Amino acid sequence: MSEAKPVVLKIGGSVITDKDGELAARTEVINRLSEEIEKAHVKSLIIVHGGGSFGHPTAQKYGIKEGLREEAQKVGFAETHHVMTVLNGLVMDSLVWHNIPAVSDAPSCCALTENGRIKSFGDTILKLYLKMGFVPVLYGDATLDEKLGFTVLSGDQLVAYLAVKFGASKIVIGVDTDGLYDADPKLSKNAKLYNHLNLSELQSIKSKLGKSTASDVTGGMVGKVVELIPAVEQSIPVTIVNAGKANRVYKALMGEAVEGTIIEKE
Amino acid sequence: MSEAKPVVLKIGGSVITDKDGELAARTEVINRLSEEIEKAHVKSLIIVHGGGSFGHPTAQKYGIKEGLREEAQKVGFAETHHVMTVLNGLVMDSLVWHNIPAVSDAPSCCALTENGRIKSFGDTILKLYLKMGFVPVLYGDATLDEKLGFTVLSGDQLVAYLAVKFGASKIVIGVDTDGLYDADPKLSKNAKLYNHLNLSELQSIKSKLGKSTASDVTGGMVGKVVELIPAVEQSIPVTIVNAGKANRVYKALMGEAVEGTIIEKE
Repeated sequence: MSEAKPVVLKIGGSVITDKDGELAARTEVINRLSEEIEKAHVKSLIIVHGGGSFGHPTAQKYGIKEGLREEAQKVGFAETHHVMTVLNGLVMDSLVWHNIPAVSDAPSCCALTENGRIKSFGDTILKLYLKMGFVPVLYGDATLDEKLGFTVLSGDQLVAYLAVKFGASKIVIGVDTDGLYDADPKLSKNAKLYNHLNLSELQSIKSKLGKSTASDVTGGMVGKVVELIPAVEQSIPVTIVNAGKANRVYKALMGEAVEGTIIEKE
Repeated sequence: MSEAKPVVLKIGGSVITDKDGELAARTEVINRLSEEIEKAHVKSLIIVHGGGSFGHPTAQKYGIKEGLREEAQKVGFAETHHVMTVLNGLVMDSLVWHNIPAVSDAPSCCALTENGRIKSFGDTILKLYLKMGFVPVLYGDATLDEKLGFTVLSGDQLVAYLAVKFGASKIVIGVDTDGLYDADPKLSKNAKLYNHLNLSELQSIKSKLGKSTASDVTGGMVGKVVELIPAVEQSIPVTIVNAGKANRVYKALMGEAVEGTIIEKE
């Protein structure tokens, strides 16, 4: 039985899938990350992964995020959840084969949103899993929504929600760049990596970004990072590392020095 | 939005998998059943499937049903749930491709048992799925247990629980024989099919069976059927048909005359 504060690890969809492909998983990356997770042997751990080329194209095809407008979308909702369970299955397969007592916990089964924000979350079983030393694995998913009928719940929102709910000791975010930059490092050579940000610096970046994601010059990264503000406000530190590079996630889980962006309240 | 009383359809693990194989799914049977379900177009439907050569051998290997005794079993619990999600994934894939708005609802995420019997079941989302016209799909699964640590929750127990909870109009049980016999039809040529049983006849068969499943001459079938007694007591009729034969499940779903065993309260 473990009463340790959990670490919440997010693995980006762009890390474990090829975003340019269709339903294209990077099983070699998934396996390497499982090895790192096994090696780190964190006492209490929650894993959340993204959708990459599984969830996103399907959700977009049927307009799931925007909500229920017509009957035909229902099969689209079913398909979106289904492809996410397929990606999740590949992750689970790898974790279990690496001897990690990982159990999937589908957000579509327990989360209810209102206009895209988590309103309620049935966590009876999740709490017990943590207490017993299991590693719950969740993911961005199609979920029912009280106002929209249904929508898409991002893994990033889920990470902050679970970290606050379970009083996480820290959050580790594995992405496909070396951390958070002031511009998209894939497009701009002069993009500068933030090594450390405090809450007010993050909030000022957020307000510069405004409400339009089209103006997100960081390549969509800030839009994800602002989801973490509620956790940072609760003094839960965040480390953003490149999960595409070996041992970065391992070092972040272990609390070792690692290239990346650290976000802390102060 | 549908407020119709749901039909609960159970599909036996021995129908959709080869019980002599290991992780051996019968995808052609799964596809035929999806066609029948699509064709029947039941207004409100819950599907529950068994584990066959996926869940059973893995659960047995690690002694999951008997509960948590040692740390090493935890990965066995994780593996048991994982292989069930793999079989469920094949079922979901087929249902969604047949244009059925089917969504998987993992029992391990929402059910908590006590000595193997369902004690609580988080059904907020399941209720909404039914109301919105989705087809929730559940399955026999490894679940956490308040006394045993964890155990195996059978699809049969789940069927009766859900049927009573949601006031089902009927239960259809798809198995690999033509119905319930007075002896194992695979072993005895003289086995006689029960065409109709009422509650007291079923109870008398149950008491003859006693507590030892080893003495279950019906080939394990009665042990499954007695799980349905709580639903029959609530006047929910049960039709047991051979899901291995074409159109039996379809006819039972439609309420058409079909070879099989009907169990009713009176």
